Amino acid sequence: MTTPSSGAARAYSRKNGEKFLHELIEMLRIPSLSGDPAHAGDVRRMADWLAAHVAGLGVDRVEVMETAGHPVVYAEWLGAGPARPTVLVYGHYDVVPAALEDGWDSDPFEPVVRDGKIYARGATDDKGQLFVHVKALESYLKTAGAAPVNIKLLLEGEEEVSSPNLTPFIKAHLEMLRADVAVVSDSSMRTIDEPAIMHSLRGMTYIEVEVRGPREDLHSGLWGGAVHNPALALAQILARLFNADNTIAVPGFYDDVAPLTAAEREMIAKTDLSEAQYKQSTGVPAVWGDAAYNIRERIAARPTLDVNGLWSGWSGPGPKTIVPAKAGAKISCRLVGNQDPHRIYELLKAHIESLAPPTVTVEVRLITTGMPALFTFDSPAMQAAARAYAAGWGAEPVFTRGGGSIPVVADIASLLGIPVVLMGFGLDDDGLHSPNERYSLEMFQRGIETAIVYLEELAQLPGLTRR
Amino acid sequence: MTTPSSGAARAYSRKNGEKFLHELIEMLRIPSLSGDPAHAGDVRRMADWLAAHVAGLGVDRVEVMETAGHPVVYAEWLGAGPARPTVLVYGHYDVVPAALEDGWDSDPFEPVVRDGKIYARGATDDKGQLFVHVKALESYLKTAGAAPVNIKLLLEGEEEVSSPNLTPFIKAHLEMLRADVAVVSDSSMRTIDEPAIMHSLRGMTYIEVEVRGPREDLHSGLWGGAVHNPALALAQILARLFNADNTIAVPGFYDDVAPLTAAEREMIAKTDLSEAQYKQSTGVPAVWGDAAYNIRERIAARPTLDVNGLWSGWSGPGPKTIVPAKAGAKISCRLVGNQDPHRIYELLKAHIESLAPPTVTVEVRLITTGMPALFTFDSPAMQAAARAYAAGWGAEPVFTRGGGSIPVVADIASLLGIPVVLMGFGLDDDGLHSPNERYSLEMFQRGIETAIVYLEELAQLPGLTRR
Repeated sequence: MTTPSSGAARAYSRKNGEKFLHELIEMLRIPSLSGDPAHAGDVRRMADWLAAHVAGLGVDRVEVMETAGHPVVYAEWLGAGPARPTVLVYGHYDVVPAALEDGWDSDPFEPVVRDGKIYARGATDDKGQLFVHVKALESYLKTAGAAPVNIKLLLEGEEEVSSPNLTPFIKAHLEMLRADVAVVSDSSMRTIDEPAIMHSLRGMTYIEVEVRGPREDLHSGLWGGAVHNPALALAQILARLFNADNTIAVPGFYDDVAPLTAAEREMIAKTDLSEAQYKQSTGVPAVWGDAAYNIRERIAARPTLDVNGLWSGWSGPGPKTIVPAKAGAKISCRLVGNQDPHRIYELLKAHIESLAPPTVTVEVRLITTGMPALFTFDSPAMQAAARAYAAGWGAEPVFTRGGGSIPVVADIASLLGIPVVLMGFGLDDDGLHSPNERYSLEMFQRGIETAIVYLEELAQLPGLTRR
Repeated sequence: MTTPSSGAARAYSRKNGEKFLHELIEMLRIPSLSGDPAHAGDVRRMADWLAAHVAGLGVDRVEVMETAGHPVVYAEWLGAGPARPTVLVYGHYDVVPAALEDGWDSDPFEPVVRDGKIYARGATDDKGQLFVHVKALESYLKTAGAAPVNIKLLLEGEEEVSSPNLTPFIKAHLEMLRADVAVVSDSSMRTIDEPAIMHSLRGMTYIEVEVRGPREDLHSGLWGGAVHNPALALAQILARLFNADNTIAVPGFYDDVAPLTAAEREMIAKTDLSEAQYKQSTGVPAVWGDAAYNIRERIAARPTLDVNGLWSGWSGPGPKTIVPAKAGAKISCRLVGNQDPHRIYELLKAHIESLAPPTVTVEVRLITTGMPALFTFDSPAMQAAARAYAAGWGAEPVFTRGGGSIPVVADIASLLGIPVVLMGFGLDDDGLHSPNERYSLEMFQRGIETAIVYLEELAQLPGLTRR
């Protein structure tokens, strides 16, 4: 076996940038929307494409494995032998919905490159970022014929619907997935010069609230005035979810939140955004929220409650004079350690039901939950990642808290008993989940080189190997 | 000229019930949605169909006349001569949107007859009701070859978008439209045994409110917590449009409302609904509104504010964790004499803008307005209508206030200087503007006979004729 050289692998990755891009474009063309049953065939096609692609790299095993929902693509290359550490790379190949009419400048599933960025749904979240690790592996296998460490790929198709079947999958395949460290690239940094490794993620409780009034839409002229308009009733309930100081009014909501220590707040302050930066990035006319915390704390270290969608009655062109039969809202809370998503659901449900007037019927439904996760950043695997950025990216990373949720991260850590290193190779303003989602080709290239170096760094940590 | 006989005409109408039904089905198959530009061709097709159909009855003139929007179908039969009164029949051949997935049991544009009712969008509002007058005219012309009075038909295609072009049309054709009384059948009675003639209609101010926050949908995990969620901001604004006693909180809203006199309230009390009746008709769990007024007053004689639609962010299946870029609501107020729709718009706009926080941008747009109308019910034309019901329908009518709005009624009355008789041949629970809109075939038949008798009653009021 040739000794794997990160230098040769890095050179290969640079030489093959054009090829990698065309492969990524092929992947982005598949509308693998996991939340929409109409796209189940596309999700399957994406899994098959990935499996075929990874098979072509010369791995030991690759398989599209069934779950109760969309399949998992699993692959492994174990040629480094039992004395070397094993890395489990997690990524997801599914995406959230996108349509031209949402405000995209080009078809979200017909990728285009403009000014060094590739525009498509899934470009940064997470097809581009999972592909970084596939291409790092390829760069070793196609040069040295081997990688410095053993590698397992766990690529799922249900992250955007909160991974309902991945935890059972992991539980059913603990031996197959056994590893020394997990790597997840599904997050972002503020600018290309400020790489960041996240050591925490927020959890989630996602609910749907439906308010029902009359049995069918009513003519507002014949019946309006004596019926509690369900859209109004919903608005009245939503308005009472917050206090005047923009804190969440659900009794008990903050009870389990572990207070931020002075030391943590000092570290967070280093990556805080100014009001001007936040306004520029988002386009809001003014910053909002709980004034007791700075902006970075509000968006990454504190729990939130957001209305993700509203619907009721007539929203087409022109007037329609009805009292709608019902109104609904999607509501999600981002949670932090030590909040329990199911307890938060119970609190939300109880509060909303307590606000429901007798004039309408209110139903609260749980859509999904995810546990928050928090890791120490002085572990060897985490410090090796920091060195990989210094060499592969060209800049020292900071350790940050992530405001997002990757539901399975807490499960990978607890079920497999290993640290999870969150190497985000995206940018905060890549527009994930938004129109014109994009991924910088330079980030893509630097990510591959950082991943290549990271595998080499891990190989030099034999203490990591537990078997 | 044969002397027109209402007896022969009524017999003809009964004998031809099956033919009339098939013609109505043909008319209901045309999806003449005036509010949706995609259906402009269907609206035109409906106008052409009506003109061709009326031409076949033997009228003196029939024409599809252009406006700045959808056309007017105008027809006249003036064979009764100048000594006889002239009746102007107003109706509308356009409909509001309908789709199977809104909860229809059958295609809204493929009419079906079940249990003596015809189910289709527009069945009662207003294709079925306008057709009553067309068939009454046919019944005279096909038997006696003449009607007892002169008849003009003014059939418009924009009532459901508040008739933006009809007032200019009337102003431009005052001589052509000159008449002694106008008849409008676009309303309803509580049960078939309780015919009603409306002597008032509510006006309307219809607005759209849009709340904008970030420039595009944001990932709630990356940005949520420091952005004022536009869906929440909209809910907070809507919640403040009402006081705790369910009165409208817009300052000045009630200023111009003419108070109901004790005598009027006594008359209204005769047609009041019980809470049980209202709940049964609508399916609401409890009655709502301003407790200072009874149910009939709330739904017919008092002004209202209703949210007709809400939209924001994600409303499809599954979770989507965004902070929506914007949220919107359609809001309409039903107005009573002497409220001015434009003044109400100014008050609404000022109030909503005063509630807008600096963290979002709020825009209030006027969609449409309509004047309220109020007629005295002791006029000869109104009393003749009462006699027509007694003979043609088989029951004495009550005079009621209508909660709905027919925007052009106030204009017909003021521009042509004539009373408008609102002979509603529908039922309150025909489901107009709702799924499964329907029209009772017995109501259709009785309506035609009542209209036939009404023409005869009017012929006996030569004092009505002003020329």
